[in-house]
Amino acid sequence: MAAAGSMKNMRVALLGGGGFIGTNLALALAGKVALLRGFGRRRIFPTAWQGLPWTDGEIGSADVRQVISGCDTVIHLAGTSTPGTADRRIADDAEVNVIDTLKLLDQCAELGVGRVLFISSGGTVYGVPQQLPTPEQAATDPITAYGVAKLAIEKYLKVYRQQRGLDYRILRVANPYGPYQTTRKAQGVVAAVIASALHDTPLQIWGDGGVVRDYVYVGDVVDAVVKVLGHAGESRVFNVGSGRGHDLLEVVRAVELLAGRKLRLDFLPARPVDVPVSILDPGLAGRELGWHCATSFESGLAQTLQWARNFESGAAAHL
Amino acid sequence: MAAAGSMKNMRVALLGGGGFIGTNLALALAGKVALLRGFGRRRIFPTAWQGLPWTDGEIGSADVRQVISGCDTVIHLAGTSTPGTADRRIADDAEVNVIDTLKLLDQCAELGVGRVLFISSGGTVYGVPQQLPTPEQAATDPITAYGVAKLAIEKYLKVYRQQRGLDYRILRVANPYGPYQTTRKAQGVVAAVIASALHDTPLQIWGDGGVVRDYVYVGDVVDAVVKVLGHAGESRVFNVGSGRGHDLLEVVRAVELLAGRKLRLDFLPARPVDVPVSILDPGLAGRELGWHCATSFESGLAQTLQWARNFESGAAAHL
Repeated sequence: MAAAGSMKNMRVALLGGGGFIGTNLALALAGKVALLRGFGRRRIFPTAWQGLPWTDGEIGSADVRQVISGCDTVIHLAGTSTPGTADRRIADDAEVNVIDTLKLLDQCAELGVGRVLFISSGGTVYGVPQQLPTPEQAATDPITAYGVAKLAIEKYLKVYRQQRGLDYRILRVANPYGPYQTTRKAQGVVAAVIASALHDTPLQIWGDGGVVRDYVYVGDVVDAVVKVLGHAGESRVFNVGSGRGHDLLEVVRAVELLAGRKLRLDFLPARPVDVPVSILDPGLAGRELGWHCATSFESGLAQTLQWARNFESGAAAHL
Repeated sequence: MAAAGSMKNMRVALLGGGGFIGTNLALALAGKVALLRGFGRRRIFPTAWQGLPWTDGEIGSADVRQVISGCDTVIHLAGTSTPGTADRRIADDAEVNVIDTLKLLDQCAELGVGRVLFISSGGTVYGVPQQLPTPEQAATDPITAYGVAKLAIEKYLKVYRQQRGLDYRILRVANPYGPYQTTRKAQGVVAAVIASALHDTPLQIWGDGGVVRDYVYVGDVVDAVVKVLGHAGESRVFNVGSGRGHDLLEVVRAVELLAGRKLRLDFLPARPVDVPVSILDPGLAGRELGWHCATSFESGLAQTLQWARNFESGAAAHL
């Protein structure tokens, strides 16, 4: 396995690499690592993967074997559901997300992959937090099937290390936002707010807009991934968040200010899948990885709005 | 749903009712509840179910529907693996145990079952304990796939309550022992020690015999089930253990004393699936359910040895 710091020698497979975070990672890691292979159901921005090896497939299938073969690091971003959808078909969701991940881990262990980096969900694994900001050792009592699936994968990773020698790291990422986040999966509050601002369409708000989230700019998430790739310490689970909370109406007001336009708000009944507040304590990542959330919420929003405007006008960077 | 205390009006489905704990529950609940239906892959003591409705089947199949239909209480004891076997085929184990349980819970929610009582594993869900005796709110970091599967089911139960209104209780049972425990699943230390004493066969010990467990007599486990059936409080997860630990060599010596015979010990390498120590704090069950482990280890062992002798001589009660 690559030692800390030797990123340029790493051979990395990015599974679920065609989504929001994957697209950002592909752009950031290309040329910086010895090998970068992508794999997943789809690429939302195929051009971000241009010139890089990409395979379409499911992580639970045999197709993944050739992709991870010869890689020392597997970054697992694949997930088919959202907090809103997983609860409708819990068994199916667990089948596709948990069981397929276990099949993947079997292959990783068999092929001698050094380390799996799993991107978990800081906003859902804790459930209703007993402590704010929430540290990694807090109780994990998800209120959604989405959160339970992520947590189950985390717990199985520990077992694979214990029983099969497959090492791992877990990043519990808060609510990521930024360039390449689209509204197509109905995930991503910031993307939805910006889309409303750009298209002058009503913004659907479940509840009173008081739901508080910890928004972390995707550039900082990429930085956390880069920093954890070569991490050699004993800690294996890290929160990746800003440590600060913003309620939805604050997000709306901030985007209104940046866009110079009032949004039309469409208030709907609150959803039982939303915890009232989620703010992560990123202290451990600071101490162990030297990571902190460098991008202020205001600056991140401005960059995201700029990207969205460029993208809509067909001038998005790299595309 | 039946209110606290009205056990005689309860309609109960016992899933996985043909195993060790299920057999004891069948004998204890028959005639005490309005309806008792059994379901599972097999009955290790079919005569214990004589005169009671029994259906062979898998909990994840449609066969279970007719069994739980019309029941207000489903006791879920079904499990196909042991801590030793689950790790060999983790994905398969999760498929059969976790996914099939989710399919079962879907059926329970659909049919309007009032409450699911899940028998979880107090000896594995905590992993290596940070605190002894271990209370329910301690960290849950299993080191085996068996423990992760039980924990994942626990977490999904919370989601089904939250999203579908299906109520539940969880008993995290320590190491149960007593009548009707056999050595066929290679589970049950006490059963193995007693079998060695009765047959004068060598006892296989993984490690140095210093592994400490919390042994709870099955009669007390049955009592905990009876007490939790009508529980109406807010707590939903209860440890069921004695609060005391015994290492394996103590178990051996106690059985030697009772049987009047020295055992032959066959020491094997320690297994990575065994945590060094597990002792549960049963205080919450005491306060909330009025339950405590009434049977001393010495008395429980004596009763178990007596049962085993009767059974071997063909005179086991009820059979």
